[in-house]
Amino acid sequence: MNLKKHFVLFFLLTLVGNLNAQNGYDLWLQYSSITDSQLKQQYTSKITGIQVKGSSATLNASTEELKNAWKSLFDTDLETREQGSNLLMLATEDRLSSELQTELSSDLESINDEGYIIKQLSIDEQPTILITAKSDIGVLYGSFRLLKEIQLHKDISNIDISDSPKIQKRVLNHWDNLDRTVERGYAGFSIWDWHLLPELIKPEYMDYARANASIGINGTVLTNVNANSLVLTEHYIEKVKALAEVFRPYGIQVYLTARFSAPLESGDLDTADPLNEEVRQWWKDKADEIYAEIPDFGGFLVKANSEGQPGPNNYGRSHVDGANMLAEAVAPHGGIVMWRAFVYSEDDPEDRAKQAYSEFVPFDGQFHDNVLVQVKNGAIDFQPREPFHPIFGAMPDTPLMMEFQITQEYLGFSSHLVFLPKMFEETLQSDTYVQGENSSVAKIIDGTLSNKKLTGIAGVANIGTEKNWTGHPFGQANWYGFGRLAWDPYLDSEKIAEDWIKMTFTNNPEFVQPIKEMLLDSRESVVKYMTPLGLHHIMDTGHHYGPGPWVSELSRPEWNPVYYHKADSEGVGFDRTKSGSNALAQYADPIAEKYSSPETTPEKFLLWFHHLPWDYEMENGKTLWFNIATTYQEGVEEVQDMIDTWEKMEEYVDQEPYEKVSMLLQIQLKEAKWWRDACLAYFQKYSNMELPESVPEPEHSLEYYKSLEFPFAPGIRPSWN
Amino acid sequence: MNLKKHFVLFFLLTLVGNLNAQNGYDLWLQYSSITDSQLKQQYTSKITGIQVKGSSATLNASTEELKNAWKSLFDTDLETREQGSNLLMLATEDRLSSELQTELSSDLESINDEGYIIKQLSIDEQPTILITAKSDIGVLYGSFRLLKEIQLHKDISNIDISDSPKIQKRVLNHWDNLDRTVERGYAGFSIWDWHLLPELIKPEYMDYARANASIGINGTVLTNVNANSLVLTEHYIEKVKALAEVFRPYGIQVYLTARFSAPLESGDLDTADPLNEEVRQWWKDKADEIYAEIPDFGGFLVKANSEGQPGPNNYGRSHVDGANMLAEAVAPHGGIVMWRAFVYSEDDPEDRAKQAYSEFVPFDGQFHDNVLVQVKNGAIDFQPREPFHPIFGAMPDTPLMMEFQITQEYLGFSSHLVFLPKMFEETLQSDTYVQGENSSVAKIIDGTLSNKKLTGIAGVANIGTEKNWTGHPFGQANWYGFGRLAWDPYLDSEKIAEDWIKMTFTNNPEFVQPIKEMLLDSRESVVKYMTPLGLHHIMDTGHHYGPGPWVSELSRPEWNPVYYHKADSEGVGFDRTKSGSNALAQYADPIAEKYSSPETTPEKFLLWFHHLPWDYEMENGKTLWFNIATTYQEGVEEVQDMIDTWEKMEEYVDQEPYEKVSMLLQIQLKEAKWWRDACLAYFQKYSNMELPESVPEPEHSLEYYKSLEFPFAPGIRPSWN
Repeated sequence: MNLKKHFVLFFLLTLVGNLNAQNGYDLWLQYSSITDSQLKQQYTSKITGIQVKGSSATLNASTEELKNAWKSLFDTDLETREQGSNLLMLATEDRLSSELQTELSSDLESINDEGYIIKQLSIDEQPTILITAKSDIGVLYGSFRLLKEIQLHKDISNIDISDSPKIQKRVLNHWDNLDRTVERGYAGFSIWDWHLLPELIKPEYMDYARANASIGINGTVLTNVNANSLVLTEHYIEKVKALAEVFRPYGIQVYLTARFSAPLESGDLDTADPLNEEVRQWWKDKADEIYAEIPDFGGFLVKANSEGQPGPNNYGRSHVDGANMLAEAVAPHGGIVMWRAFVYSEDDPEDRAKQAYSEFVPFDGQFHDNVLVQVKNGAIDFQPREPFHPIFGAMPDTPLMMEFQITQEYLGFSSHLVFLPKMFEETLQSDTYVQGENSSVAKIIDGTLSNKKLTGIAGVANIGTEKNWTGHPFGQANWYGFGRLAWDPYLDSEKIAEDWIKMTFTNNPEFVQPIKEMLLDSRESVVKYMTPLGLHHIMDTGHHYGPGPWVSELSRPEWNPVYYHKADSEGVGFDRTKSGSNALAQYADPIAEKYSSPETTPEKFLLWFHHLPWDYEMENGKTLWFNIATTYQEGVEEVQDMIDTWEKMEEYVDQEPYEKVSMLLQIQLKEAKWWRDACLAYFQKYSNMELPESVPEPEHSLEYYKSLEFPFAPGIRPSWN
Repeated sequence: MNLKKHFVLFFLLTLVGNLNAQNGYDLWLQYSSITDSQLKQQYTSKITGIQVKGSSATLNASTEELKNAWKSLFDTDLETREQGSNLLMLATEDRLSSELQTELSSDLESINDEGYIIKQLSIDEQPTILITAKSDIGVLYGSFRLLKEIQLHKDISNIDISDSPKIQKRVLNHWDNLDRTVERGYAGFSIWDWHLLPELIKPEYMDYARANASIGINGTVLTNVNANSLVLTEHYIEKVKALAEVFRPYGIQVYLTARFSAPLESGDLDTADPLNEEVRQWWKDKADEIYAEIPDFGGFLVKANSEGQPGPNNYGRSHVDGANMLAEAVAPHGGIVMWRAFVYSEDDPEDRAKQAYSEFVPFDGQFHDNVLVQVKNGAIDFQPREPFHPIFGAMPDTPLMMEFQITQEYLGFSSHLVFLPKMFEETLQSDTYVQGENSSVAKIIDGTLSNKKLTGIAGVANIGTEKNWTGHPFGQANWYGFGRLAWDPYLDSEKIAEDWIKMTFTNNPEFVQPIKEMLLDSRESVVKYMTPLGLHHIMDTGHHYGPGPWVSELSRPEWNPVYYHKADSEGVGFDRTKSGSNALAQYADPIAEKYSSPETTPEKFLLWFHHLPWDYEMENGKTLWFNIATTYQEGVEEVQDMIDTWEKMEEYVDQEPYEKVSMLLQIQLKEAKWWRDACLAYFQKYSNMELPESVPEPEHSLEYYKSLEFPFAPGIRPSWN
């Protein structure tokens, strides 16, 4: 029996013991069958065939995607036709007739090289839906966009869409090690099976590329920022090349992390001094070697002189010296360098929140044109909530790249349902005021505030070998949402939530509405049960799993939670005003001034900027202690609300994701209570105040919470070199 | 839209970009649609409904499996009915009428507690197919057997089968660490997601249990023999319990590895001396604690005083002291101890091949009744070919458990196609002659040679988070084949190959015949291109990836390949006759005598037992050197033959496995050539003889092969404590 010819078989198999049932592998590209006859009629009458002008791997990918989706959506073939009415035409601008070019001239002017136009028009007197663009990749993006419109059941009868990405480098950062462990990875092993590359090309590689292209991600850094120089050897370049070839039709460039000491570790040189000519030549040669194999190689991401990583400071040189050396090596090939500003010194007594700014702002304007300085959203480290990083706006002559973290290192790993686009949006829409009102972080990132030529945004990936890629079924929403915001940093997170829910699960409003609300509320809930009111960095050490506000004996002061909350019998919080570290002075004046007084500081940032007495009276007339306690309690209650909401959704989703989410929500509830109980038990030692009536006593003693150890929590950094 | 109700959707999805296509997750339980109308008619007319007597989780599992399979095989529901003709009846013996019990008395006498009877008979004058057994689990095994008959398109019109497992403990050994890395694991991360247990129960856990039950595996050791004592703490016992509950309906007991120093590491005691009363009580308490949570816990597997693991020798005590202490702890609960005989001392100059025998044979008869001594198939370490371990037959008063390795540590990892049942069969059918002719290893293992009450067999699992469980699509055959041989160690590997191919791919003889031949030949090929003519242990160090015959500087002599091949200008091979280590004396006389001369030693074991000159004349009249070289070459050519065979099979298999196997065979060919070239380049240094004309010159210099390093080869043992 020829199995290939018996597809019905595979359908049936999905029933057996849930084998291969809705396991989440298809992400938001479900292309769920459209059963509403009116809708189906509209789509299949407006598009009765496909016509593709020209040919390339990217155009083929577009065509295949459309054809496969069509089969899935409408159970009918979308056939290639050379002429006819109601065709879907794919053609880049240069393939259009001069007539059409003229007709579309204003549309074409409005898009950039990666943008697209989808338009209902008449071509040779035949009604046609045209997807056009200045490049093949634009056509692919347009194809995914059209499919999204259909997945969302939108009316396409007079479709007229043009869109372009607002940021150039839209990149995933994989913190994946060569041994396939993933630092801060909570979704299994690394999807890169280095050992079997370049020969074994897994289907997952193509599906990864498809998923990314569908949301406009155009780059991937394959390796951990805590880098291993082996990936720069010939043996690995061959493997990287194989991945690059799979990704290329989908418009995805590969990047690698460059370990600064690679010239030393290669055995070639005895220094990695960036001003040494041999070192400079070594990197040029290395770049030439890589580009000879991978002509569209993206460039390097570098973590230097940070948390033990080598860097230019080891040789008395600056970050500018280091970044520019690498930039010169890749410049002839069109490559870029993404240089991380995530630095804090092991012997600088200055407030850690201030150090990156102090070190990098003086370098403004000194980096080469092909360097992006990659800045985390906040000044500490991907906490549940941080004010925007003060570097944003403070380096007008340097292209700054946003670094978000999609993997939930500090937000419950892959077991907590937290919709991160809501958090990303908060940062992007923050007004820096550096050029007066309306100087949002988004405008700095997309280059509009000071006309940057190079723009970028990075997200630390939450992807692994889990069958559904991200472990938590809702973790997919964060990958999706990052991509959407990378394309358009002004997008509303509510819109993202709605699109993702519909594409992943169903358009049924009985499901969409409550689940959208659940997603949008979820980020505030995790802030409440982990780090309310501006508290931060009070997690346990190393694995960062669970609460550890008591940790005080780590070798570097700024690794200790007590450094950040400074709880004592007098009060709690980090004074970053003039009377304290004065980190506030790194912000532009309307903010610096407003936040200098606790009364005018938004309560969500209160303890980030102020050390306040436990009985400090807050807006609601209650004490700070009362508000800390009740906010923790609210966080727990909101997780219970999520459980209640989800329980009503069983009929709308398949069994596997339904049950998985149900089980994970129980973990989230257990851990939310753990955070509440452990933190309140600890802080109560200092507040010496009773818990409000609405807040239950901690289930265990403080000593119990302190005694918990999790040596095998996932995602632990294996070693730093 | 209610997705649950739109199954057709999932079918369609399987077409899209190959998402969720035949990815191998379903293993040999494909239940492929039967389209031959005659066959379909036979099955659906002989079985028109199902009747289940009694109720239990195991009977429910049986019923669900049959119903789901029916839907998949015949696209029709197998409905539960209380009466009627042509029913399939599931009932344990005690649920049968006394009439039926009498009618079946001789059948029932012929099976053991786990056996089953499947029989066409008349019940209440209605034609019925009865699956009966002495226990629920027998009914489940019978259900899987009936499904196998149908998958193999067998005639069931007068079905009359009774079968029982010949070995009691049929166990997978997972060398899975608590951090989810797998020692010698080549199929991704560990499937045990410890961090999210006990709350998150993944569908994979149930499907793992189903797959094992379908081949009769009834135990699983969850953790690495290089053990971590944390798994014995309350925190982990709760997680183990959750897995045990998933596995229980499928008749699978969980076991753990017991780190001998656990009483110390727990912080409770300052010794782990097995004769210390507190230590003995600690283990009894620990067993009580585990059994309170997991009443059917299987017991412990122990690697003691081996390769750095702690054990009784640390306290001047013997393996008997250690094993019996643990045996006493679990005995009240019906548990067992599997104590590994894989020992070799770091300061014993005796031939490593002799040491386990020397140490264990004197203990014969001294272990408690609930101890199984677990012995690897050969005396060294899971090499591509080893003579059977001389302990088999030498400890008539001790139950010996076979330890096979399914994961291909020394046989090309998961990238080489090697059908291991052929190798297992070779060991099982080896005649030890200890009680004269027909004293096969199988008879020792199944207890028939000396009437053992406790019998067991273990396979080191090749399972991980790869979507198809084993990485290589054909790796599944080794898991399957191990299970089949564990049930019946006399089974022909050809039969196993045929069943597996049909159940996994297709019954089409155009595919079955050539692929069966390919499987059956594949094991000899790997021997040829890695370790021909009795060579062994010449792989590279640590990761065991690729050839390393030159390795000579490791701290322990018996870790060095040169220790095993002893190549010099005089010749090659390990003299284990009287003139050498006399390991041969550990075998019973007909073997010891026959193998004492190279002329009467089977050529496949020649260099295992003899050090011979390079120009030693072999049966074919050619020199030893000529034969070494041409055998390596044959191995390479046979991989090319496999590629040629596979290329003709494209039409019979789905695209994903077809392409994956094609790519993996290219890796196998590349590595076969690497083994040939590196080993011949090395040995030629000593033979000083030309390569035969049929053998190409090595592609690279010996220095090149010696320079290769693979620090991130998969499955590396992380650390030994």
